Parts: sequence; structure tokens; C-alpha cells
Amino acid sequence: MASDTISFARGAPSLDIVDVGGLRDAATRAFTNDPGGTTAYGTSIGYVPLRRWIAEQHGVDEAQVLVTNGSMQADAFLFATEVEAGQPVVVEKPTYDRTLLNLRSLGADVRMVSLQTDGIDTAELRALLRSGVRPALAHVIPNFQNPAGYTLSLAKRNELLELAAEYGFAIFEDDPYKHIRFSGEDIPTMHSMDEHDSVVYASSFSKTVCPGIRVGYLVGPAALIAKIAKLATNTYISPNMVAQSIVYEFCVSGAIDGSIQTVKTALAERVATLDAALEQHLPEARYTLPEGGYFMWVDLPEGTDVAALFDAASERGVQFVKGTDFLLEGGENTLRIAYSGVTNDRIDEGVKRLADAYRSLAGSAAAA
Amino acid sequence: MASDTISFARGAPSLDIVDVGGLRDAATRAFTNDPGGTTAYGTSIGYVPLRRWIAEQHGVDEAQVLVTNGSMQADAFLFATEVEAGQPVVVEKPTYDRTLLNLRSLGADVRMVSLQTDGIDTAELRALLRSGVRPALAHVIPNFQNPAGYTLSLAKRNELLELAAEYGFAIFEDDPYKHIRFSGEDIPTMHSMDEHDSVVYASSFSKTVCPGIRVGYLVGPAALIAKIAKLATNTYISPNMVAQSIVYEFCVSGAIDGSIQTVKTALAERVATLDAALEQHLPEARYTLPEGGYFMWVDLPEGTDVAALFDAASERGVQFVKGTDFLLEGGENTLRIAYSGVTNDRIDEGVKRLADAYRSLAGSAAAA
Repeated sequence: MASDTISFARGAPSLDIVDVGGLRDAATRAFTNDPGGTTAYGTSIGYVPLRRWIAEQHGVDEAQVLVTNGSMQADAFLFATEVEAGQPVVVEKPTYDRTLLNLRSLGADVRMVSLQTDGIDTAELRALLRSGVRPALAHVIPNFQNPAGYTLSLAKRNELLELAAEYGFAIFEDDPYKHIRFSGEDIPTMHSMDEHDSVVYASSFSKTVCPGIRVGYLVGPAALIAKIAKLATNTYISPNMVAQSIVYEFCVSGAIDGSIQTVKTALAERVATLDAALEQHLPEARYTLPEGGYFMWVDLPEGTDVAALFDAASERGVQFVKGTDFLLEGGENTLRIAYSGVTNDRIDEGVKRLADAYRSLAGSAAAA
Repeated sequence: MASDTISFARGAPSLDIVDVGGLRDAATRAFTNDPGGTTAYGTSIGYVPLRRWIAEQHGVDEAQVLVTNGSMQADAFLFATEVEAGQPVVVEKPTYDRTLLNLRSLGADVRMVSLQTDGIDTAELRALLRSGVRPALAHVIPNFQNPAGYTLSLAKRNELLELAAEYGFAIFEDDPYKHIRFSGEDIPTMHSMDEHDSVVYASSFSKTVCPGIRVGYLVGPAALIAKIAKLATNTYISPNMVAQSIVYEFCVSGAIDGSIQTVKTALAERVATLDAALEQHLPEARYTLPEGGYFMWVDLPEGTDVAALFDAASERGVQFVKGTDFLLEGGENTLRIAYSGVTNDRIDEGVKRLADAYRSLAGSAAAA
């Protein structure tokens, strides 16, 4: 790996768009304003003032919120509570690789339903349900999906809610990118439109505060949250109170709004640069420009061997994640580009290297 | 519950012995000195400088250390990796209630071996091993055991190591209280004396920094640590980098030494007060004074109904944990007193209330 490698691989922010000063100030306030709550164990529901703040944001009762060590941990708790080995679980195709891994390690019967540029293919899901498959839950990343960057339309959100009510499955609305919309109009969450307690909602402060703070949360029916809180107690007594108290101070001071604005401005610029660079250096690439979030899915011509491309790219000092990592099968001509971690001045160079790697593939579609 | 309840129930420090100012300063340094490492995801092994610091403290290679979100999470990872349903696991009798709960929920065949004032009854363990039982591991809290407050003698540490080598089981040395010794001589860890890679060691900063920081760690053979790191990645990507960076700054600045001294001084004083108060108000109590840690085990006369005592105590505004919570059976005349969370000026009053509750038990040994 070249020492100046440009990594489009990791879904994480570059340091320039993290409000380090704001976090430092929030940490000072956390220890000053609530030394007891910040330093003591607390309980598995999370830091009480932050839990209350989240409940207010979502217009729900506090008993419906559980604050966790990152939203991955929230996912793991939810899956451990709600999914049994052998049970069908619907996920998007492609979907987040760790979700796939966790569900498979639980022995779930993972059913991938195609993702379209306006979200999961609800006709395909309906056909699956009509065929008799009864999933425990459907995992959906509605906004700026990981890995594809696509957003679920309002019409499909309503349709999913109808299907969930009709067929009795839970929708797991996994929504860490919602606040990072830099173009287009915000669409209401399924959780906010849910009239049948069908939706469990998860989000995170990783994209709006910073990932190292590891604070995520679940919103769901109070009985389910209580069940998961018990599992959380037995797993780690309580999540990180210091981190949650810092997040709370960061939120109530309004620093989070400035942080979100910084992130959105930078990412919008990066997407524009990425688009221009691909058009110039790799016109074979097909993609839909994301309206928010960290990721863009790229299709290369049929016959492209993404594994070979990955190696050729690594040699040239550019990294991405192969599309095949987000699928159970197929995707050999696809890749995920994360622009969140690459500053704008490096994007063109990164795409140049990627294009160079693509052209180096002898016998590939590129050479044909 | 009375509004001024005195709680001898929770194994947590009172706020007066937490170095809140030192933590606030450490947080400022964390964001200033390493903004990137503090705010980014990192990896599941933990914050690299803290991992290195811990490795140096234990004289091991960094690859042998995994830093986690509290040591309970470390325990949970270790058990998930090393214990299969139906497998025998040795624990002390009594032992930490959450350990018991976790092992039982994994379906382990929990074998409790009596705890004596100098630690686990090695003769009883030897007999168990000779009878053909082959445990996956033996969980031992060597210093100021939770719940009993007893410490494993050097002779028994050596004997345990010999048994582990002879019968091929792992010793899980769960040692969060080691640095909180306020009388007597420090005894080397089994991990430091281990010549056969028999020991996996866990500890925590909950008792030396603060519990809300949720930082614990495992030290063990590199291959095992790598296996657990993989499980940790799949569970939460990475532990809390902000918290671990704060702990690192707290440690390298030497603030941790001052913090430990504060805790030891206060707890020594509290144990002396507790001893005097029990002698005065509840002379029926039998106990061994701990040389460190948070807990003291109290035996009351045979026939005492600790569940009734618990209720009578609650009514009088004093709380403790019933001995029965730390056992699979028996212990109806025992209780655990945690003096860590009660300031010295409240201990005598707490014991008075407890004694009053004890004398209120009609038909109990107290009334006899």
C-alpha cells in the first residue's frame, strides 16, 4: 500500500469535518455540570438527560428509548432479542456488510430484496411475502443507504408500513445518515408515520458528532426496549456515561447543528468533485448521485472483475470496498465509494488512480 | 424507600473519591493531543496508546491486550468465545452475580467451589477435577473478591496454576480491585507467574478512574485475543475511543496514582468505621475485614432470613445485597456490604438501621 493511499473504503468522516473544539468544550461542561451522572455507572438505558433529549426529538416517551455504545451494538441487541436461528429476515440487496455478517452468524435465513434507486423493491418484497415467507423483521436503511447511497421514497415508506401491518413483521429502520442530507427534500421517517408499532428505529451520533464517541440509540415499543435494556444490563451494566454526557452537552448547546452544517457543506462539495472526476477519468462508471450520507455505489461494465480491480487499485494507492462484500452473491462489477473520509483536494487524484487501475485490467471489459 | 436511604448495595465509588477535576483535564488533553485518534472509529483492539500502556504495565506484547467497554463486556466476549453450552465452568461460591447470570444464560454447567477466607478451596477443586469434571475455565476473583472481600493466598495461586496445567483448563483471573489494596502486602497475579499460557487476565479502570468511563481490558495469549477482537469488531466495530483516550491521558499524567491513593485512604477509613459500627450495633455479625476493594461479606446467625432482613432494612432506609444473589443455593443468613459508595459519616447510621432491622425480625435467630 502506498504511503499516501487515498481511501474511499471507510465510512468515516475526515478529521477536518469533526468539531474537535466543540467536543472538548462539551467534555469540560459534562464533568462540570453533572459530575455524578457523568462518572457513575448509570444504568443500561443510557445517560438519562440524553435519553430524554432523544425522546423529545422523536416525540416519544422516554421509556421508548435506549441509548447504546454505537448503533451497531443497538443492532446486535435487537437481533439477539428478535431473531432466532432459521427465521427469515429481509435485508436490502446490497446491504451493510456487518448487518449481513451479524444476521448470518445468528443463523438467520437472510432474504435479500433488490434495492432500487428509490429504495427496496416493494413489489419483490410483496411477492416474497405472498409466497408464504414470514420474516421476523425487515432491515431497511432508508436514507442514503449504505452501501448504495439511495434513498427510500415516501410512497415506498408507506407501502412498507402497509406490508408490515398486513404480514405482521417489524421494520427495523436503521437511519444513521438522516441528518446528513445536502440536497433534495427531507422525507419523514417510517417511525414517525407508524400507526401499528411496526417500526423499531435506530440512529447514531457517529455521523453528526464523531464516530469515536460511540453513541447510538434505539427507539421502539416500550416493552421491547425494556427487554433489550435487560440484555444490555447483563452485557455491560451500562453504556459509556462519559461519552453520552459529552454528546448531551454537545447537543443542547447547539454545537451539533453547526457540526451537521459543516459536514453537509463538505460532503456536497465532495460529491460534486467525485462526479466531475468520474465523468472525466472513468466515464464507464454508472451511478446515482446521493443526496446525502457517505456513500456512492458505482457500476462498472459487465465483465469487470472487482477483485482484480481492488488489487490493481491498492497497488496504485487507492482503496474502496468491493460490491461483492455487500451481497451474498453477484456484484462482481460493482464497488462502494465512501467520500466521507477523503478531503475534497484528494478526490480527483483518487479517481485518477482508480481509473488507471481499471484500464490496467488486461482481458477485462475495459480492455475489450 | 426512605429519601435518605443509605445504600450498601452497589459496588461503586461515592462521588467524593472520584477525581472529577483530573478527568476534566484529561478530557481536554485527549481532544487537544490526539484529536484524530480520539474522535475516529479506531478498531476493536481499543485506543492504541492505552493498549500499549496496559501492555507495558503487564510486561506483555501489545498483541496480548484487548481494551473493551468495561470489563463486564470483556467477560462476555471471553465466555462467548471459550464456553459452550453444557460445558463445565468453575466459579467461586459465592461469586459475582452477573458472572453467574452470564454463564447460566450461555447454558454452561456452572460448578461452584467453596470460597475460604484465603480464596477458593483448592482441595475441593482438586477433588472435582479428580472426579473427572473437565472445566473450560475457572473464574477466580483473586483480590478482595466480589462479594466476599477475601483474597487468594500466594500458595493457592501457585496451586491453581499447577492444577490448570495438569488438567488443561484456563484460569480467568478477574482482577478489577487489585490496585485498591489499603492494608497487607500485594500478592503477584497468577498471570505474572503463569508459565503455560493458562491465564486470561481481566481488569478495569472503573475502580481507579471511574465506572462511568466504562473501560476494561483483557490480557491473554495473542491468538485468543485476536479471536476475541474479531468478535468485538462484529459486535460494535470499536470500543469508546473518547473514553479510552481520556483514560490514557489520566494514566500517563500520573493522575491515576493520586486517584488510587484517594480511594485507598477513604476505603481504609470506611472499613474501620464499619467494623466499629458492627461491633457496637450488630455484634452477631461475623466477618473477615477486607484488605482492599469494595466489599465485605457478613454472616448472621443460622436461621436468619436474609430476604426478610432485606425488606425490613429497606423500610428503615438501608440497602444491601442478599448473599443468596451470589449463590445457586444457600446463603440465607448472609449478605454483602459494599462500603465503596457510602461516605464515612453515613456508615454508622447505616449499620444502626441494619441492626434495627435485624432485631425487628420476629421469630428469627435474633429474637431467639
